[in-house]
Amino acid sequence: MQLLQDKIHAEGQYLGNGILKVDSFMNHQIDPVLMKEIGEEIARRFASQNPTRILTAESSGIAPSLAAAIVLRVPLVFARKHQPITMQGEPFRAKSESHTHKKDVELIVSAEYLKPDDRILIIDDFLATARTILSLVDLVRESGATLVGIGSVIEKTFEGGRDKLNHLDVQVESLARITAFENDKAVFA
Amino acid sequence: MQLLQDKIHAEGQYLGNGILKVDSFMNHQIDPVLMKEIGEEIARRFASQNPTRILTAESSGIAPSLAAAIVLRVPLVFARKHQPITMQGEPFRAKSESHTHKKDVELIVSAEYLKPDDRILIIDDFLATARTILSLVDLVRESGATLVGIGSVIEKTFEGGRDKLNHLDVQVESLARITAFENDKAVFA
Repeated sequence: MQLLQDKIHAEGQYLGNGILKVDSFMNHQIDPVLMKEIGEEIARRFASQNPTRILTAESSGIAPSLAAAIVLRVPLVFARKHQPITMQGEPFRAKSESHTHKKDVELIVSAEYLKPDDRILIIDDFLATARTILSLVDLVRESGATLVGIGSVIEKTFEGGRDKLNHLDVQVESLARITAFENDKAVFA
Repeated sequence: MQLLQDKIHAEGQYLGNGILKVDSFMNHQIDPVLMKEIGEEIARRFASQNPTRILTAESSGIAPSLAAAIVLRVPLVFARKHQPITMQGEPFRAKSESHTHKKDVELIVSAEYLKPDDRILIIDDFLATARTILSLVDLVRESGATLVGIGSVIEKTFEGGRDKLNHLDVQVESLARITAFENDKAVFA
């Protein structure tokens, strides 16, 4: 997706250790024009899988997922990292780890919003080590729903996450795939 | 906004103690068709204020803010509750409290994304006690930006938050205003 690659080149900041800062358009401030196009592109790639729900993790997954959900016209569920007082009954839980906060977290989804007859499309901002995405996959499994696809906005191929998704045998898509950083600039696949 | 009131009547669950559960369409699962219309209505009400940025708090504020930002074509900044490793320099900070998690939190925004010449529209999911919104106002003040409006999706008028915003002398809008719960059903203004 050229517009996204251009934005990464113009505004992404490489902080070292494989960490790309995209806070100016995706993870802290959001560029709504870009995000709308990201949603349209995700929707285009997965429409044929006929997802019935999108699953993501708060907070950075919400924007691309909502943008895609508006086009696909299916509900979006965002996994919580803390159980709110409004969540009743026994939810689905999966262990995870926050890359940008360097700590263990738990992802929690109410059993009300993931059903065995659902076809789930998982979306997240990054595909790097795939830890968050694999936790979301665990939630789908717990619910008995069918996983039909995994989409990320930015993939860092050198962190190997895609290989960890191979066994799932579902369509995996990333809108920008970074293979390396050279002179602090992203190199795209 | 009739569509929103209808949704609250159909799917909102009153849990007692003034707590309305809207997890099926706003705070855990998001109805994208409704959220798109929420964004359009917020944008319509505040377009004349010419905001240059929208400010909200993660996570539940992101969806309505993004939906509005797409229409207004201005960037959206979501205040973080924990400082990510990508946030450099000294950010703006404000104390707050999570209503749905019953604990103190801090709202944090990088100084990169709130500037003195900005015209800020604050958006949040609920206007109840106004604690979160007043923390966002504190962040706007710290930055030197101009506050031009405050919008919420659902207001619980009986919690008195709107009175605490009077002194700010800005336009305050809520798309559904609940004055009370009677027989576990919301009564609208």
